[in-house]
Amino acid sequence: MDAPQRDMRFRLRLYFGDDLMFGPGKADLLQGIADLGSISAAGRRMEMSYKRAWMLVEAMNAAFAHPLVDSVRGGPSGGGARLTEAGIAVLAHYRALEAIVLQAGAAQITGIEAMLKQDMSSGR
Amino acid sequence: MDAPQRDMRFRLRLYFGDDLMFGPGKADLLQGIADLGSISAAGRRMEMSYKRAWMLVEAMNAAFAHPLVDSVRGGPSGGGARLTEAGIAVLAHYRALEAIVLQAGAAQITGIEAMLKQDMSSGR
Repeated sequence: MDAPQRDMRFRLRLYFGDDLMFGPGKADLLQGIADLGSISAAGRRMEMSYKRAWMLVEAMNAAFAHPLVDSVRGGPSGGGARLTEAGIAVLAHYRALEAIVLQAGAAQITGIEAMLKQDMSSGR
Repeated sequence: MDAPQRDMRFRLRLYFGDDLMFGPGKADLLQGIADLGSISAAGRRMEMSYKRAWMLVEAMNAAFAHPLVDSVRGGPSGGGARLTEAGIAVLAHYRALEAIVLQAGAAQITGIEAMLKQDMSSGR
């Protein structure tokens, strides 16, 4: 009997009262800004509009005591953005939480997976 | 300095290849069936249409090797539904996984929470 070999993924969304939802989209956007040094480039990588990427950054900056993203619109260097210390910390907490789901939750996830029909997905 | 006292909630969705998303909606529906003995009553409690509740049950029953819900449409006793052993097990795995997020992930969640602006939500 083969062990299940599925493409398991998960999405974890955190809601803090009515003020902030923080989940994989915002985490990936922060990651993109860290990687690419630009809000619009980070949005593009996620196939997200420039407007939406800015809106998400503004929502995060408004919800946290210190902004997560430091940005310059335009300017001599053509603008740019980077994560602040707070942004780096929030992203690190979220990524650590994702890792905990996979590690501490492995037995539960495997428990569900093992009960799935075995012939589904196998050809994909 | 007060500790953050927010209404933190989270939603965890698991994706097994293209075949199944299992998350809080399906878990609550299974819970409702266990509590109420009826798919439609479980759906109503969640403000979900009868059609959607049945559709979700059928999707779960199709994705797992053994059905999660055993149901009788109509019939002398007026129909009814209950979780099978498989349904009880899947729901238990998912609830355990949720508990793991809160317990094993507490430091990460608190880490994010502590960085939120302190004056938001306080009046809600």
